[in-house]
Amino acid sequence: MSGPRHHAVADRFPLVDGELSVGGIPLSLLAARVGSTPFYAYDRGLLKARVGQLREVLPAGISLHYAMKANPMPAVVDFMAPLVDGLDVASGGELRVALDAGMDPHDISFAGPGKSETELVQAVASGILLNVESMRELRLLAPIAQRLGRPARVAIRVNPDFELKSSGMKMGGGPKQFGIDAEQVPAALAEIARLDLAFEGFHIFSGSQNLRSEAICEAQTKALALAVRLAADAPGPVKTLNLGGGFGIPYFPGEAPLELSPIGEHLAGIVESAGLHLPGAELVIELGRFLVGEAGVYVARVVDRKVSRGEVFLVTDGGLHHHLAASGNFGQVIRKNYPVEVVTAGSATRQRETASVVGPLCTPLDLLADRMSLDTAEPGDLVVVFQSGAYGATASPARFLSHPAVLEVLV
Amino acid sequence: MSGPRHHAVADRFPLVDGELSVGGIPLSLLAARVGSTPFYAYDRGLLKARVGQLREVLPAGISLHYAMKANPMPAVVDFMAPLVDGLDVASGGELRVALDAGMDPHDISFAGPGKSETELVQAVASGILLNVESMRELRLLAPIAQRLGRPARVAIRVNPDFELKSSGMKMGGGPKQFGIDAEQVPAALAEIARLDLAFEGFHIFSGSQNLRSEAICEAQTKALALAVRLAADAPGPVKTLNLGGGFGIPYFPGEAPLELSPIGEHLAGIVESAGLHLPGAELVIELGRFLVGEAGVYVARVVDRKVSRGEVFLVTDGGLHHHLAASGNFGQVIRKNYPVEVVTAGSATRQRETASVVGPLCTPLDLLADRMSLDTAEPGDLVVVFQSGAYGATASPARFLSHPAVLEVLV
Repeated sequence: MSGPRHHAVADRFPLVDGELSVGGIPLSLLAARVGSTPFYAYDRGLLKARVGQLREVLPAGISLHYAMKANPMPAVVDFMAPLVDGLDVASGGELRVALDAGMDPHDISFAGPGKSETELVQAVASGILLNVESMRELRLLAPIAQRLGRPARVAIRVNPDFELKSSGMKMGGGPKQFGIDAEQVPAALAEIARLDLAFEGFHIFSGSQNLRSEAICEAQTKALALAVRLAADAPGPVKTLNLGGGFGIPYFPGEAPLELSPIGEHLAGIVESAGLHLPGAELVIELGRFLVGEAGVYVARVVDRKVSRGEVFLVTDGGLHHHLAASGNFGQVIRKNYPVEVVTAGSATRQRETASVVGPLCTPLDLLADRMSLDTAEPGDLVVVFQSGAYGATASPARFLSHPAVLEVLV
Repeated sequence: MSGPRHHAVADRFPLVDGELSVGGIPLSLLAARVGSTPFYAYDRGLLKARVGQLREVLPAGISLHYAMKANPMPAVVDFMAPLVDGLDVASGGELRVALDAGMDPHDISFAGPGKSETELVQAVASGILLNVESMRELRLLAPIAQRLGRPARVAIRVNPDFELKSSGMKMGGGPKQFGIDAEQVPAALAEIARLDLAFEGFHIFSGSQNLRSEAICEAQTKALALAVRLAADAPGPVKTLNLGGGFGIPYFPGEAPLELSPIGEHLAGIVESAGLHLPGAELVIELGRFLVGEAGVYVARVVDRKVSRGEVFLVTDGGLHHHLAASGNFGQVIRKNYPVEVVTAGSATRQRETASVVGPLCTPLDLLADRMSLDTAEPGDLVVVFQSGAYGATASPARFLSHPAVLEVLV
């Protein structure tokens, strides 16, 4: 991409020799280094900068966890592990990657409805913290702990009696499959005591992908108040309180980045209040998308340029089988374009034109950009989809139409 | 599932010992045989019956192709290959499976925008028919054919100047990435002549998942008329005309199965007319979903039963990572429930209750049934999602949250 930048998010990937770069490497050179397209590229510098940005605003007394589900690429997890205070996993598969990354099991937690017995065994054997989601899990854990001769470290994932307002995804409030309803928690705490499990605290996750700091602050205040209330029935002191995450990133025109400083200031008050009401409790925020989403791009190569009845179609070797969310088919009610740019190796300024970027699949759903303003592109040029570091490669139907798998690199 | 059947589609899977069966095997026994849940099970008898049902109504002179994209499981393709007259592939990966299945390359065709050079080489080397989608493909083919010393067998995939009305997916009409616009076909035919490629005919695919026979008949009539018109400029006789498919299956309440007999009668007229205007041309219809969709079920096991604020959630070991379409996240604008039933090993009649079936993922999108009337279920019971033989395992984000891969069996 030469000439002016067309998306604010592109500024994270500075021009080198007039061309967008990832990790300081011009994209066409990076594509050659990867060996084939399409691929995802994640930028170490941006990952580190994002953690730094958070550390600057988060008060002492707030631990920062990485929710691996957003991007479980082992190289990414290895890189993030020493930068954060803990990892949150969502399956036995993710747990293996977290342990491989060398994270202290004490600082790994596991949430997810429907954990299998195998996963519960993995968790107890590893010594990680289980965010328990049902009475059934509690009852299964007692014999597992006994058999392995290890404590079952448990926190209760609470389905709160409030929700995170204006969230992309509501994950608390009302009837939900996640966690134990707040009003059933006293009974669960009694069960933990009866079964002699190692109670450590609460996990209160109310939503995700939120761009309004005041909504996040309000949810944190409510989560702390709920935890303090529930702690009255706990069999021991609360050692950890996971306040969830919910920090969103902007994907679409008109969306502004989340303001962090009000959240930082608000969390300072939360830390103070927790110090009084839950003394000794570690306060955790758990972020996935916010840590990695903006550090990654998806790169495909233009295979064909077609003009059909006056409209330009750039047919690429990538598509929804690698990047379902960018195609608009992952939870979106109305399809909107992710920020997309054309990257050409040459440095001459190209004309802009309106074009659609499609993939190689035999379905009209395979659409990465719907009639966007882009630099004119020819076969061989690259197309970049920004904001692609989270819920990309692993959240896409890779085997659809039996095309080659997407590659991932950390640069 | 004991007691009455609650979905008409369930009747395809008769009760054996009071329990739903696939391929004559009661489901709980099948689950034991597979070894673990979740899995897809496809029924050989139903696949064969569906082909038989079509053969009964299709006139002589219509060839029946299987579009592998709907379900490329090698065992399914192996089973279908001798039952049909040809296979249609959508990638180099599918082509390998088609060849492994022993299908005569003469009867394999390959459509898809953005074919890679490697795929074009594969096609020419194999001797299959390429449904060419752009001028670029034509120009790339000439040197490939020369280098390999093999003819490049080509048909033109036409983006028609009409569309298939009331289709789930429109794939023709208006500006599209698929095929060559009808009005550009004469130029493409001239190019085929100039490049000395082996012209064989046309492929006119206007839409899919249609439940209205009159819409399909109308599209076939228009496709034939268009082919006849375009043939005037062809460098040789039309040897094959692929009329597309579009035959839908009912997924949701209120949808009625497609009526086949009017289509069969209509195709008899098409055959007659083609005999006059395109003498010697093989007429092909290409079906994917219609052949396999109703022959398959997705089976998951209930891991947990939770009551949250008065609503019942059956948490299973399967979910959207295996069956994206059933979760409502694959092209659907409004989420609707697929037909779902609970299957219990016992033969006692269970009470019905309203329950939601969810998966193990940490996202509210992971929903297989939203507040449906189901037999009451307990952990260990099985949940069956019907109408799951097409666009299931391969059209889902298998790696999402790093859960185990889904298994597939042909019974």
